[in-house]
Amino acid sequence: MKSQQHCGLIESERFLRDFPPTRRYLIGVSGGRDSIALLHLLVDLGYNKLVVCHLNHQLRGRESQRDARFVGKIARDLQLDCEIGSTDVGALAKQSKLSIETAARFARFAFFVEAARRRRCTRIFLAHHADDLVETALLNLFRGASPGGMAAMRNISIHRIGKTKLTIFRPLLGVWRSEIDSYIEQRGLKFCEDKTNRELGSSRNRIRHRILPYISKTFGRDVSKAIWRAAAIWVDEESFLEVMTPVVGLRLNVVELCKLAVPLQRRAIVGWLRLNRVPNAGFDLVENVRSLMEPSSLTSKINIPGDRHVRRRAGKIFVE
Amino acid sequence: MKSQQHCGLIESERFLRDFPPTRRYLIGVSGGRDSIALLHLLVDLGYNKLVVCHLNHQLRGRESQRDARFVGKIARDLQLDCEIGSTDVGALAKQSKLSIETAARFARFAFFVEAARRRRCTRIFLAHHADDLVETALLNLFRGASPGGMAAMRNISIHRIGKTKLTIFRPLLGVWRSEIDSYIEQRGLKFCEDKTNRELGSSRNRIRHRILPYISKTFGRDVSKAIWRAAAIWVDEESFLEVMTPVVGLRLNVVELCKLAVPLQRRAIVGWLRLNRVPNAGFDLVENVRSLMEPSSLTSKINIPGDRHVRRRAGKIFVE
Repeated sequence: MKSQQHCGLIESERFLRDFPPTRRYLIGVSGGRDSIALLHLLVDLGYNKLVVCHLNHQLRGRESQRDARFVGKIARDLQLDCEIGSTDVGALAKQSKLSIETAARFARFAFFVEAARRRRCTRIFLAHHADDLVETALLNLFRGASPGGMAAMRNISIHRIGKTKLTIFRPLLGVWRSEIDSYIEQRGLKFCEDKTNRELGSSRNRIRHRILPYISKTFGRDVSKAIWRAAAIWVDEESFLEVMTPVVGLRLNVVELCKLAVPLQRRAIVGWLRLNRVPNAGFDLVENVRSLMEPSSLTSKINIPGDRHVRRRAGKIFVE
Repeated sequence: MKSQQHCGLIESERFLRDFPPTRRYLIGVSGGRDSIALLHLLVDLGYNKLVVCHLNHQLRGRESQRDARFVGKIARDLQLDCEIGSTDVGALAKQSKLSIETAARFARFAFFVEAARRRRCTRIFLAHHADDLVETALLNLFRGASPGGMAAMRNISIHRIGKTKLTIFRPLLGVWRSEIDSYIEQRGLKFCEDKTNRELGSSRNRIRHRILPYISKTFGRDVSKAIWRAAAIWVDEESFLEVMTPVVGLRLNVVELCKLAVPLQRRAIVGWLRLNRVPNAGFDLVENVRSLMEPSSLTSKINIPGDRHVRRRAGKIFVE
């Protein structure tokens, strides 16, 4: 931990100073190298009331079961509480027509919320690191991020689900995969090797194994650090823009909306669409809603999925 | 112009409605297909007081001279005024240790400012299009954009150089290269083919000819449109954040700076470094200056290029 390679980990310790180790926290542990490194780092720093949370995704049969047992054993060895859940992510993906990766993220999130309720503890550590941040930023960029979508991963993010508030801490966002690797090696830590990480199926893996190396090769230098800095800037800008955006009700007041700066209009509309349970609010839909604001707008109705419409009438924009 | 392929051009016409064709404007014309298309589009729309501005970059000897003559002839044929300048961009790049592309941009800008003074006209049309916007966004991202640097290309941008104010209009930012190509073809317009565009020397060309095709191939769809939308969002966010950022003097007041949200602190520092003629204010320098704000900061001095320093003393941060 004192070698120069670990400067990211030192940053993590600085970040952690604001979160006393004497409190209880959940921690998401897949059993892979990232979460195992985070778990040991936290234990080393005196966090002794961690609840290890592991979701069996049921994607790799016996291997998945073996991973769950592995995480359970580590928790016992470290004398930590443990929550092991199980979801058929493959079936969930099929049912909901989501990619395996997205379905897995939803399933994990639901499981963490359940664990938070059961343990009466709404703080959770996750092991996302600097390379994850860079890959997510590029993924969002290539997919066409909605306003605010470039800042998907934050050190601290707060989620409200019904009556439960879940606060996610990501202390490793400044730590590179290579730093985690050498921490794991120096400490001689055991972890599960997730084969799906190696395969090129998902968009994330294509970014990791093909696109980033290709760009770095073409430019003759590692572009990840540059992208990381841009992503760090986006995160802070997003927080600020979010704070500046007024909370809206189920109907948008056109006069009030017009008074806002364009980036705040877009965020207000994204928030309003979410409130109206309109999924996948992308740039085009947001811009179409914005076009309803104009008095000269030729249309007063926009079709949205699920046979619903966005309408403007009597100075209000609403979903019906 | 009425085919579906030209929907970007129709957007351009909408943008242009705010700028009456009866006024005088400069227009940058390299002679390449983009600027030739813009020139003819504007003439078609009734802009008959255009001043065609062409800078001979002296990079391709006789060919450069031929291009300058070509642009001069087009201006005469269209009965428009013309400003032809000449700069040895190769020598300038060597002298100033800049890339040819950057030196060329500086040289063109200086030439446009000169033309603006001579013609007493501070409005200029440039032919940057949607692909340029996407390429610039990626270039800035991979280089490690400073805060605000992701929004380099705007529909309208205002530059102050000494006493001269230059307002740049870019009506083609929503038009794709392919749309320009088919406009050129349908109109049977002549233009100069710039061979340097085809070569893979510059970072921009590597993005255009290698990286964007590679990403699109890997994802199985054209990612340019997604990146264009993100860039469009950044432009608006940047305008808003700029407006929110207070103007600073030669010395930064630490108490005032601390009151600002982080994105505004960063922009205030970028503006302050520029005011103090500190070149290349990247993310790291800005963050180092920000670290001087903290009362617990261990250092009160940062080295900057040119044997100068940023210091904090008596509640002020200044360059000496």
